[in-house]
Amino acid sequence: MLDVSLNRHTSQALYRQIAEQIKTQIGNGRLPANTRLPTVRQLAQELGVTRLTIQNAYGELQADGWIEATVGRGTFVSPAVQPMSLQPTIGQFLTPDSALSDMLEINHIIGVRSMAMAHPDPTLYPTDEFYDYLNRLRPIAAQLFNYGPIQGDAELRVEVAKLVQEAGITAVPEQILITAGAMQAISLVAQALAQPGDLVLVEQPTFLGTLNIIKAQHLRSQAIPLHPDGPDLEALEQAMREQRPRFFYTIPNFHNPTGYCASPEKRAALLALARQYDCLIVEDNIYGNLAYDGPPPPPLKAQDGDGRVIYMSGFTKDIMPGLRIGYAIVPPHLRTRLLTLRRSTDMCSPELTQRALAHFLRDGGLKRHLRRVLPVYKERRDTLLTALQTFMPAPVTWSQPGGGFSSWLRLPRYFAPGELYRLALQNGFAFTPGEAYLMDALDAEHLRLCFGNQSTAGIRAGVQLLSELIRQRMQAGSRPSTWLPIV
Amino acid sequence: MLDVSLNRHTSQALYRQIAEQIKTQIGNGRLPANTRLPTVRQLAQELGVTRLTIQNAYGELQADGWIEATVGRGTFVSPAVQPMSLQPTIGQFLTPDSALSDMLEINHIIGVRSMAMAHPDPTLYPTDEFYDYLNRLRPIAAQLFNYGPIQGDAELRVEVAKLVQEAGITAVPEQILITAGAMQAISLVAQALAQPGDLVLVEQPTFLGTLNIIKAQHLRSQAIPLHPDGPDLEALEQAMREQRPRFFYTIPNFHNPTGYCASPEKRAALLALARQYDCLIVEDNIYGNLAYDGPPPPPLKAQDGDGRVIYMSGFTKDIMPGLRIGYAIVPPHLRTRLLTLRRSTDMCSPELTQRALAHFLRDGGLKRHLRRVLPVYKERRDTLLTALQTFMPAPVTWSQPGGGFSSWLRLPRYFAPGELYRLALQNGFAFTPGEAYLMDALDAEHLRLCFGNQSTAGIRAGVQLLSELIRQRMQAGSRPSTWLPIV
Repeated sequence: MLDVSLNRHTSQALYRQIAEQIKTQIGNGRLPANTRLPTVRQLAQELGVTRLTIQNAYGELQADGWIEATVGRGTFVSPAVQPMSLQPTIGQFLTPDSALSDMLEINHIIGVRSMAMAHPDPTLYPTDEFYDYLNRLRPIAAQLFNYGPIQGDAELRVEVAKLVQEAGITAVPEQILITAGAMQAISLVAQALAQPGDLVLVEQPTFLGTLNIIKAQHLRSQAIPLHPDGPDLEALEQAMREQRPRFFYTIPNFHNPTGYCASPEKRAALLALARQYDCLIVEDNIYGNLAYDGPPPPPLKAQDGDGRVIYMSGFTKDIMPGLRIGYAIVPPHLRTRLLTLRRSTDMCSPELTQRALAHFLRDGGLKRHLRRVLPVYKERRDTLLTALQTFMPAPVTWSQPGGGFSSWLRLPRYFAPGELYRLALQNGFAFTPGEAYLMDALDAEHLRLCFGNQSTAGIRAGVQLLSELIRQRMQAGSRPSTWLPIV
Repeated sequence: MLDVSLNRHTSQALYRQIAEQIKTQIGNGRLPANTRLPTVRQLAQELGVTRLTIQNAYGELQADGWIEATVGRGTFVSPAVQPMSLQPTIGQFLTPDSALSDMLEINHIIGVRSMAMAHPDPTLYPTDEFYDYLNRLRPIAAQLFNYGPIQGDAELRVEVAKLVQEAGITAVPEQILITAGAMQAISLVAQALAQPGDLVLVEQPTFLGTLNIIKAQHLRSQAIPLHPDGPDLEALEQAMREQRPRFFYTIPNFHNPTGYCASPEKRAALLALARQYDCLIVEDNIYGNLAYDGPPPPPLKAQDGDGRVIYMSGFTKDIMPGLRIGYAIVPPHLRTRLLTLRRSTDMCSPELTQRALAHFLRDGGLKRHLRRVLPVYKERRDTLLTALQTFMPAPVTWSQPGGGFSSWLRLPRYFAPGELYRLALQNGFAFTPGEAYLMDALDAEHLRLCFGNQSTAGIRAGVQLLSELIRQRMQAGSRPSTWLPIV
């Protein structure tokens, strides 16, 4: 019942091992409040230890308030337990990497209403349909459990070619590289295009995963300010002209974190600049299918006459993250280099899920799925915007996303959203502090709210709480650090 | 029936697109010899093109000998088709990366008897049992299709901790990092330990994947000669003393490509050197469970008193490669860095397969599976050694692997195994040329034969053919390049 594993070859006492593992499971939400634990006798028998060992373990847990014993009823995980109390690291740093780490941790904690992470709602995943496709492959599974092709499953590449064609992109399967999520596509393409020390351009703010990649690969980056209609062209031109960057990374459709969509004029100008200064564009269109107000704008790649755009997307946001399937459309001269780099990291993606996804796409599964989920996400987007309008105090402003999963809020200047972040977490609510999306944190007066994975009621309650915290914070006026201890 | 995808927005004629795609599918073995193709009428209807388009495509394929039409019977993939003829790149280069690319390609070609790749036999994969575990997770699949924990599924880490404990390694789940195959473990650990330009030590020969990683990460490497009882200690000590390498990468158990196993004395000396010169050891134990002559020697990590060994293994060789699941046991000071690096490449592995594997392991699936497959692989190993003894001409020698999947052959000096490789491929037989496992190709007089994925009859036939080619080559004497055009 309890998943406890004992190591008899270590100096740590068995009762401590048991207590620690139960604490961890309570802390990460695997043992929610009020879960009944096995009796001392049962657990002793199951683990092959004495009852005294279990009594010691339970005794320690009880003393620390993790569990409660009621005579005649049994032993239960304490109803008062705050999973968060096990996570002293959360909120400690606001770098892109720490913020990502936090949101993934928070994702696994019960009792926190998280609008921190831009992922779809698991209750909407097409798991049953996908399982049917997995099961249909059972007769040929041995073949699919071997090493798969480095470039990706051939059938999936055919389906991706069809899919992007609907967005106006002409690509043959040979140009498509399947990756472990769009994230790996960005990582491999960055590695292929830039050497340590090379300069790349990113929008400010931008996807924090890309900031992580830039750091891990020892690249230099320069921020191009992002406006609601797209990147600042003057800054972009100057950087391209003076710095000779290796590439410009951009998310023209339903940008993360802002939700902005580049205007047709900006897109045309951007392509013209790339041509003029012979600069490559890395286009991330991961949210491309999540358009709530009509069809999404065509990607830059659809207008890319001279092969300057390297396009990437994936199925994390519009189907489900756990597939870990993304793709890049790459120019012929980069293909060999990218295959070599893939062989030098993790070889290939599992072919079974790739093939199942190929058949799901072939049979129109994505379109069916989008017809089902887009109205839900649209309603949540609308709920978020209405709730912000209703509850937020005046100086706060926010973006109006036409797609994707997030809105970008601007707080009064010098607001220190890091403190707000920690305070909200203590109140059981999570957002992402704006710092995580910035190359430099000078401009730290933003936060991101994601609406994909909260019910409309949850969104309203979350925004109301956040608004209240901001209001209190504003009333506290010039005493910024007195009302909350900084961890 | 035929998987053909047409692009109407390109200048390439439709019939050419159809012909090219059919050629590719014949070439990569998806359409084996004698496959019946759809009729002109059927295919025209299916693709929404005129019959003339299909007639043109079939006409071109027929003219080039790819397909044959028989009046009244239909159109068939030519029985004479040699899939290899489509692969002019195979055998062109013998670098680690090209060799790996070749073996994966060859793996997907029908009609080549490949002893090139060290992978298990797909007909022995526990696919049915694994599918049962996948299906049992269906009720909680939505949760498992979300982002998984960066460090890996918690239940899988518990099972891995139990598994390595049987090999004498004490590790708590917290120290275990699940990776996309052991390959990614090597890649992440190398990235965590060494910066571009840093020196690392490898055995010569060594796993070609590691050579690829070293190159991709811009590291410098120095070769330590490998003897049948382990690495050359004198060379190792000198390198550790004079060069201060970041780590020494070693495969003490059933080494790839040689099959060698380090002696107990060498293991103890190696650990002592690491202690003396404060050098980290990266231990790759991917073949550890594939022991044919009694239990495998305990890994270095089991004797690692002071935490100098970073241990990695995975389930590619003893279960199936398509899981893409490996792991590393990492010292506490590296854990955060490795998690950051994983978040900066592909985020996390799919949790569904991790959890299914955890339950498979928990229920003793690996032990059951090994009981079933070890006798088969042992017989193949014995067959290989007997066939070599029977057929190989005198100056050729080979290793006697006690486990793993490969034997390492030594040819007469100045033999140019690259030519032998291409000649063997033309005769429908594949091995891996020794160059691929060497940092520098000066010592290129070896080749690797893998016995895991061939029947005993196939192994005998392959060795007989190879012996005959070597004999011919030896008789040709000093005319090395006259009898085979170098591509």
